[in-house]
Amino acid sequence: MMSGTSADGVDIAACEVNCGDRSLRNVGASTYPYPEELRSNVLRLAGSERVEKRELMGLSLQLGSFYANMIGRFLAERAIDPNGIDLIGLHGQTIGHLADRQQFGEYAGYATLQVGEAELVAKHTGIVTVSDFRSADIAVGGAAAPLAPIYHALRFSRDGVCRAVVNIGGIANVTVLLPDGSVKASDSGPGNCLLDEYIRRQTGAAFDRDGKIAGHGSVQTKLAAGLLANPLLSRRIPRSYDRGEMVRLLDDTAYRKELERFSLEDAMATLSHMTVATLNDTTEGLRGGCELNSVLVCGGGALNRHLTTELSTIFKPAVVASTVEFGSDPEFVEAEAFAYLANLTLDSLPGNLPQVTGAEHAVVLGKISQP
Amino acid sequence: MMSGTSADGVDIAACEVNCGDRSLRNVGASTYPYPEELRSNVLRLAGSERVEKRELMGLSLQLGSFYANMIGRFLAERAIDPNGIDLIGLHGQTIGHLADRQQFGEYAGYATLQVGEAELVAKHTGIVTVSDFRSADIAVGGAAAPLAPIYHALRFSRDGVCRAVVNIGGIANVTVLLPDGSVKASDSGPGNCLLDEYIRRQTGAAFDRDGKIAGHGSVQTKLAAGLLANPLLSRRIPRSYDRGEMVRLLDDTAYRKELERFSLEDAMATLSHMTVATLNDTTEGLRGGCELNSVLVCGGGALNRHLTTELSTIFKPAVVASTVEFGSDPEFVEAEAFAYLANLTLDSLPGNLPQVTGAEHAVVLGKISQP
Repeated sequence: MMSGTSADGVDIAACEVNCGDRSLRNVGASTYPYPEELRSNVLRLAGSERVEKRELMGLSLQLGSFYANMIGRFLAERAIDPNGIDLIGLHGQTIGHLADRQQFGEYAGYATLQVGEAELVAKHTGIVTVSDFRSADIAVGGAAAPLAPIYHALRFSRDGVCRAVVNIGGIANVTVLLPDGSVKASDSGPGNCLLDEYIRRQTGAAFDRDGKIAGHGSVQTKLAAGLLANPLLSRRIPRSYDRGEMVRLLDDTAYRKELERFSLEDAMATLSHMTVATLNDTTEGLRGGCELNSVLVCGGGALNRHLTTELSTIFKPAVVASTVEFGSDPEFVEAEAFAYLANLTLDSLPGNLPQVTGAEHAVVLGKISQP
Repeated sequence: MMSGTSADGVDIAACEVNCGDRSLRNVGASTYPYPEELRSNVLRLAGSERVEKRELMGLSLQLGSFYANMIGRFLAERAIDPNGIDLIGLHGQTIGHLADRQQFGEYAGYATLQVGEAELVAKHTGIVTVSDFRSADIAVGGAAAPLAPIYHALRFSRDGVCRAVVNIGGIANVTVLLPDGSVKASDSGPGNCLLDEYIRRQTGAAFDRDGKIAGHGSVQTKLAAGLLANPLLSRRIPRSYDRGEMVRLLDDTAYRKELERFSLEDAMATLSHMTVATLNDTTEGLRGGCELNSVLVCGGGALNRHLTTELSTIFKPAVVASTVEFGSDPEFVEAEAFAYLANLTLDSLPGNLPQVTGAEHAVVLGKISQP
């Protein structure tokens, strides 16, 4: 079960994992949108620096209960016997993520805050539930993100071929699969979050379907350069981002005034360019000298035609394609990744890649809740 | 590892659990006080309704790191081989606990907020760590407190005898062990929290050692009656309390003015009376018609001679004694309880008592973190 920083809902994928070669087959997947109240609570708490403890506790329970109910609905809709499900990998909802190393008294490291109570899922579904995958990586000095690369490598890596897997959620990240089997990865910058937030503020719409509005605009190069020069976007690679800090770019009066000087179409095209340019820069930084053969796009952003067209242009001559052409529905790659990670947890196998997160070593991720 | 709402530190007890009859032997125990900064952070966050997310994340990591270090120190001091330790039961630090049933949107239930990252303990000690015991009970409708009664029953129950186990931490709770083997339990009201907080505010001292100051005062009966009449203290039994809500009684201007009209000794004697009177009332409510034989006192309050003297008076003719006379150092009964509860978790056995917490049924408590 994956619920990303876009806070639009939860993706559920039923997966069969072969314990021999650990190959994974997605046998069915659905997305269940958050009810409006839940979504606005998630966005409010994720976007605030101070929170009411009561609200925080309440949100975690509401989300846990929602997740448990959606598992019930998902299994019923597909007539899957709950007894046939061995375990649930529950990502939960990130409502805080400090992407820079922090000093807390004598303690130094990264920090994350996940909600969506796993005990509600375990107890109400009757299925073992693995949750809070990120804290283990943080405990050994890592940045706790991204975690999907180990799965991208399993699923999409091919001997002798250099591929990038580009995941466009609220925040975007890139995994580079090198021809020798090694893996590099990093968050890149904004995925859909600036696009979603800007159009919401301007028109009230949840998002720009298919990138239609951005597709009718032109990139305002001076504004784009100004945005890309923000210190947030020049963090060293590998880097990680919090949706809240990214969206706060739009609160900057200077940027806002500039954006509003242009048409909605132009503003959206310019914000789309930020996503594409930071994805390209990050991929450049990760691939070293290795020539890219192909770029596989997944995440909600894979459905945004404007973004994929722009990606095709910027990544030329590498071929840009949806992961669906490699057997994975782009909207469910992350959900598959957490099914795989939960499987590793129950087998006491490590799930983080230290070269990706900066952790001191590979560790077993996730906490196990019993039914 | 137990760290209670007094926030004075962590109690560590090394226990041998016999997997046959599940008897438990405490083979050595120590208390490690929180460094001053950590203690004040815990008390500040526990006492605030709104918190900074960054502070909350930081506190959880600082505490987790402190717990891991103290396990290392404890084992080194006693020359115990870490490989000989099968598991750690980590209570963590409660910084929020909503003791009344809440409505969060469509979700109804109790709520709790625990910090002290278990992954830091598991990864840095190399020992399987069970944490967040309370959320499982909440997931099935319980109030998540108290959790020690199942251990009190194992340790102190005796056929044909009616006993009360009185645990005086920041908040106090009572377990009544009935002659037929059945168990009833509830939080009673203030333990040490009002005493500690009042003397801290008046003199800066951390606590009234041995209850010496209170011992020189007289209970101001009208003021005591006024305090006991507060709606907080007339909640139905079984009930549970949050340290924060209890301590806020002292912020009430009317109470504060009244307390300050009297000498420090009289104020402390009056606050001690609140602890003793609510313990007695709660025990009365739980024991039904059954005549009490003995009252076993544990928790930090067992060292407060004024409290134990007053308990001896109020519980007459029942004998009041420290748990040490029954083989358990009163300061480590709770730590032993969490060693026992963690043991139940790894064996997938339930740890809550539904008649105590109000849960719909008994469930396996705790989340498992692997080294």
